[in-house]
Amino acid sequence: MNFASDNAYGASAEILAVLIKASEGAVASYGDDPITARVQERLAKIFARDLRSFPVATGTAANSLILATLCPPYGAVFCHAESHIAVDECAAPEFFSGGAKLVLLEGDGAKITPAIIEAVLPNFQRGVHSPKPSVVSITQATELGTLYTPHEIRAIADCAHKNGMMLHMDGARFANALASLECEAADITWRAGVDALSFGATKNGALCAEAAIFFDPAMAKDFEYRRKKGGHLLSKMRFISAQLDGYLEDDRWLKTARYANALAKKLSVGLLQINGAELAQKVQANEIFVWLPDASIKRLRKAGAKFYDWMPPQDGRTMIRLVTSFATPEADVAKLLEIAKS
Amino acid sequence: MNFASDNAYGASAEILAVLIKASEGAVASYGDDPITARVQERLAKIFARDLRSFPVATGTAANSLILATLCPPYGAVFCHAESHIAVDECAAPEFFSGGAKLVLLEGDGAKITPAIIEAVLPNFQRGVHSPKPSVVSITQATELGTLYTPHEIRAIADCAHKNGMMLHMDGARFANALASLECEAADITWRAGVDALSFGATKNGALCAEAAIFFDPAMAKDFEYRRKKGGHLLSKMRFISAQLDGYLEDDRWLKTARYANALAKKLSVGLLQINGAELAQKVQANEIFVWLPDASIKRLRKAGAKFYDWMPPQDGRTMIRLVTSFATPEADVAKLLEIAKS
Amino acid sequence: MNFASDNAYGASAEILAVLIKASEGAVASYGDDPITARVQERLAKIFARDLRSFPVATGTAANSLILATLCPPYGAVFCHAESHIAVDECAAPEFFSGGAKLVLLEGDGAKITPAIIEAVLPNFQRGVHSPKPSVVSITQATELGTLYTPHEIRAIADCAHKNGMMLHMDGARFANALASLECEAADITWRAGVDALSFGATKNGALCAEAAIFFDPAMAKDFEYRRKKGGHLLSKMRFISAQLDGYLEDDRWLKTARYANALAKKLSVGLLQINGAELAQKVQANEIFVWLPDASIKRLRKAGAKFYDWMPPQDGRTMIRLVTSFATPEADVAKLLEIAKS
Amino acid sequence: MNFASDNAYGASAEILAVLIKASEGAVASYGDDPITARVQERLAKIFARDLRSFPVATGTAANSLILATLCPPYGAVFCHAESHIAVDECAAPEFFSGGAKLVLLEGDGAKITPAIIEAVLPNFQRGVHSPKPSVVSITQATELGTLYTPHEIRAIADCAHKNGMMLHMDGARFANALASLECEAADITWRAGVDALSFGATKNGALCAEAAIFFDPAMAKDFEYRRKKGGHLLSKMRFISAQLDGYLEDDRWLKTARYANALAKKLSVGLLQINGAELAQKVQANEIFVWLPDASIKRLRKAGAKFYDWMPPQDGRTMIRLVTSFATPEADVAKLLEIAKS
Repeated sequence: MNFASDNAYGASAEILAVLIKASEGAVASYGDDPITARVQERLAKIFARDLRSFPVATGTAANSLILATLCPPYGAVFCHAESHIAVDECAAPEFFSGGAKLVLLEGDGAKITPAIIEAVLPNFQRGVHSPKPSVVSITQATELGTLYTPHEIRAIADCAHKNGMMLHMDGARFANALASLECEAADITWRAGVDALSFGATKNGALCAEAAIFFDPAMAKDFEYRRKKGGHLLSKMRFISAQLDGYLEDDRWLKTARYANALAKKLSVGLLQINGAELAQKVQANEIFVWLPDASIKRLRKAGAKFYDWMPPQDGRTMIRLVTSFATPEADVAKLLEIAKS
Repeated sequence: MNFASDNAYGASAEILAVLIKASEGAVASYGDDPITARVQERLAKIFARDLRSFPVATGTAANSLILATLCPPYGAVFCHAESHIAVDECAAPEFFSGGAKLVLLEGDGAKITPAIIEAVLPNFQRGVHSPKPSVVSITQATELGTLYTPHEIRAIADCAHKNGMMLHMDGARFANALASLECEAADITWRAGVDALSFGATKNGALCAEAAIFFDPAMAKDFEYRRKKGGHLLSKMRFISAQLDGYLEDDRWLKTARYANALAKKLSVGLLQINGAELAQKVQANEIFVWLPDASIKRLRKAGAKFYDWMPPQDGRTMIRLVTSFATPEADVAKLLEIAKS
Repeated sequence: MNFASDNAYGASAEILAVLIKASEGAVASYGDDPITARVQERLAKIFARDLRSFPVATGTAANSLILATLCPPYGAVFCHAESHIAVDECAAPEFFSGGAKLVLLEGDGAKITPAIIEAVLPNFQRGVHSPKPSVVSITQATELGTLYTPHEIRAIADCAHKNGMMLHMDGARFANALASLECEAADITWRAGVDALSFGATKNGALCAEAAIFFDPAMAKDFEYRRKKGGHLLSKMRFISAQLDGYLEDDRWLKTARYANALAKKLSVGLLQINGAELAQKVQANEIFVWLPDASIKRLRKAGAKFYDWMPPQDGRTMIRLVTSFATPEADVAKLLEIAKS
Repeated sequence: MNFASDNAYGASAEILAVLIKASEGAVASYGDDPITARVQERLAKIFARDLRSFPVATGTAANSLILATLCPPYGAVFCHAESHIAVDECAAPEFFSGGAKLVLLEGDGAKITPAIIEAVLPNFQRGVHSPKPSVVSITQATELGTLYTPHEIRAIADCAHKNGMMLHMDGARFANALASLECEAADITWRAGVDALSFGATKNGALCAEAAIFFDPAMAKDFEYRRKKGGHLLSKMRFISAQLDGYLEDDRWLKTARYANALAKKLSVGLLQINGAELAQKVQANEIFVWLPDASIKRLRKAGAKFYDWMPPQDGRTMIRLVTSFATPEADVAKLLEIAKS
């Protein structure tokens, strides 16, 4: 019963099969291979427009390299105070950008709004004493498992662009978001004003593969140099690309995301039957933030279930995080519910 | 007939098999898994001492993160002018170190010596106007396919340490070097004074796996933070570690290196039977730098053989580079020789 | 009537006189001159211990270079959310450190406490995902004109050191603080656990001179290289040093600070006689943060008085900042009071 | 007898007088003062075009901040192997740019040519493996006291621009160069294709003042932020600007440069009368590189004359550097000649 993270499980059998096959023969290295080209074509089709995509091995690489491309060293990135780039990447964006500032915003459900951005902006418009507002970064699905609607993203994008900033989306769980929103990929990205996307695959069945996507190809050259300089251009690039190839093939990415989302839904519904259980956040993707009675939690820990405490105990309850993934066994959900309730 | 690089081929079947197996089950992420621990144990045994090893996905990451650990922003790294860190990594060491200077040294066979280092040192001992000499970096096997003997390394290490510098070894082709020298791994590393090693696997059968090795565990903490901050800590770390695990198991890494070396030897011996052929460098590992008549080269190109011109044509001959690998078919060597000679 | 900042006025006649005199003759450049040596001696005497001091031309240089010396690229600097390093230096510390994170703390009167630090620390003790807590930085006098007592500093230092962090003090207004506290310089620095000090002179009568001071000489070498690499080592260093020489000579620095403090006191006492006037902060040095009726403010603006609004108008009052300096004419204080009251 | 450097003397009386006067009254800080504006007007007039100028306190700041503005982190700066940016600034350009590479070129008299640039360029046109050629930097007068003619600069600029690079000029001794060439300032800068200039004043009579000049105002905003972030924006900016103001007033800068140049000429002519004396470089500005008999050198050292040995002794002679400045006493030249000859 591992609900600690969607990176606790390995890779999907289908992606592994594509990876094995990709190993055959000799091809050009550093991304000049047919698989890497095919991935870009697949993504262009999925996003319904010309774009440039760059495979990398980690989400931190995708995020940081994109932010460094969009934000000068003297710039500021506006993001939620709980965002992954703010609290889980050891200040990698600051490093890759050459010292840019992350401006931490508060907002319900780990989401930000134009009003929140505009309330802070004046502090950064006093000339060179403050870094220049350059990028807004949002996470979809958010770090609290919530979602931005196309309309909300459009409003943020308009606010960003009006103020001379670009819009980045951290899509480590983009598949879960899209599967839940039931719209097109374009609707929550470029059509809503997103300039660049960290398109995640690792959490949803790949071994180590993300794609940095620019909807404006003009930004690509800068990124390519930065990726190389950051040590993130793989010589045998086909092995990252093959993961993305297998991920995108036959809508596999959406199928696995739907599976994880459905488990999360089932799990949350089940947990709410427990006396004293209460959702801390809406369950919109594959993460559950829930207050549970300490007795339930104690039983779960004793049974070896893995998950994180998210807030310290309070009045006999603790807020925990449970994450489902493409590989979480359905039986584990049933088992966890049984133990938690008993 | 692909002799362009040892990264042109995919991965070995054995390593892929270990990788597939590693995908099973849920484990702790970010390197707290049993496979990552096992790799460190294997390396400690191979190098016959306690050490700390950190898997990363690229050689540039291993080199740059180690150099940043050993060299302050105001430091200088002494290396050969043709070394990979100097000419093939888009100045990644300068980026990761925060602006350190690479001091480019000339030396036969892409090798440097204490005398070469000492000739340049006085330029960097004028106080703060010059960066502080902090690291010497050598490549084993070198970028020209030559080798450092244990004795030569010891002399460089003594020179470095005496002058307050550390010694780094870029071992992208460490296996080829070791297989050729027929000594112990320790003899050309810590026993000879090497402080840190980029231990390559990618060119010799892995998909994307190198280990950054510190023979002094005290340097490990700094490296761990830098790896994370550089976006080089994989969430599903087991997938990089599994490659190293399969690589090291049963001396597989030395077997594949011996195979590649033997092919290179065979190829070079065959080529020298051509009228006008001449080795530009001793063939000590899996790379051949050879002057061939332009007629031979033309025939090879026409037949689709892949390799790099290394020097422009001169008097009817061109210097080319041929690289063999764990996966180069023996038949390709025979075929290339036949075409080159005919 | 310029109360906008203590950098609005020029330099004191005495310091200018020392500067002129320092121009005579030929001396060694880059700090190997007798004036620079004398400044270090003066500081050692004032602080009653061996120390290393490095003149630089700006406070941002002193702060950033010290922080980069104390904090690794993967480190975190804990400071008040309103501190100069956090909001007035365009993220210079992030740049000089190579991407360190500033952790912004809230606290009354722009001051932090051990409790505030310890409340946040656990977020940064989850391994490499967060930057490593490395430095606590406090400002004396603070950006709101308040002061830390020796006892308060000691408590912060103990908290910092216990948690593996160093303590930096931004002393842009150190003279004003010391003059007000009526203790010894050592009492609010090394004796209270401060590791490094940005010792300001510019705001208190110099043209452009600060000293970066390390109470542990072992840190000096690193700093010297960083200063040079940051372009902050002046060839004709004597001209910065001479300012500090003239500043420290005959307790001049404390006299001018006392003058500015006394004017601030007088001004604040006078302002409180206005109906509706209210201090937002205690006036402990040379800055006044005061709520004044909008009618008073309107009259002052009309009369050409220069000062900053610090908070937007609220219920017919606005919070403004008034700063006095070594050169503020006493008559201006009287005049401002008269206009504000009338 | 100090001929060690043109930074060995203090400041000119006239510049000091302007500085003193600038101290009067309260003005806006951070460069929004009338003196800073006037300096830009003076420079625009001298260079006969609209431009943007930014005072800074050191030449390393001017060079590094300009290079960081013109060169991305993944770029390369082509410069002479003996240039100040390459060997005297502790790799400051690498730091400010975020890791750019300086490509060191050899050329007679510390000068480079289009042919030298073009010979190296192909090494940097292999895609992202090498940094992107972004800037050519030349020094006027060079570090060996030689000069580029307008025609030579034009040729370099054309070569740079044709290859997508910008042209920077390090003008630490720009006045000496211009005074010697007897052309207009525009002829050796923007009219010849120079994009940005480090305009030096410190070596020629100022205390600590250089101006970073962009002939294309569009680059100014980026520079302003970088200057602040680098700690190089002075709060009491008027004090740097006043130096430049006094420097440029009444052609003072050219008068002092002519004085220094004339002394250098006189000195070199005198030295050549010594048996065995030989110029190592043409004397075109205020620096002399000359081989002198060791006996002469010994007498000079004994008499307390200060200068640098530039090359180790060879066949009874040593190459030394002698530098004259605005403040070198004429009598010292006569005295040095007398001692050297006797």
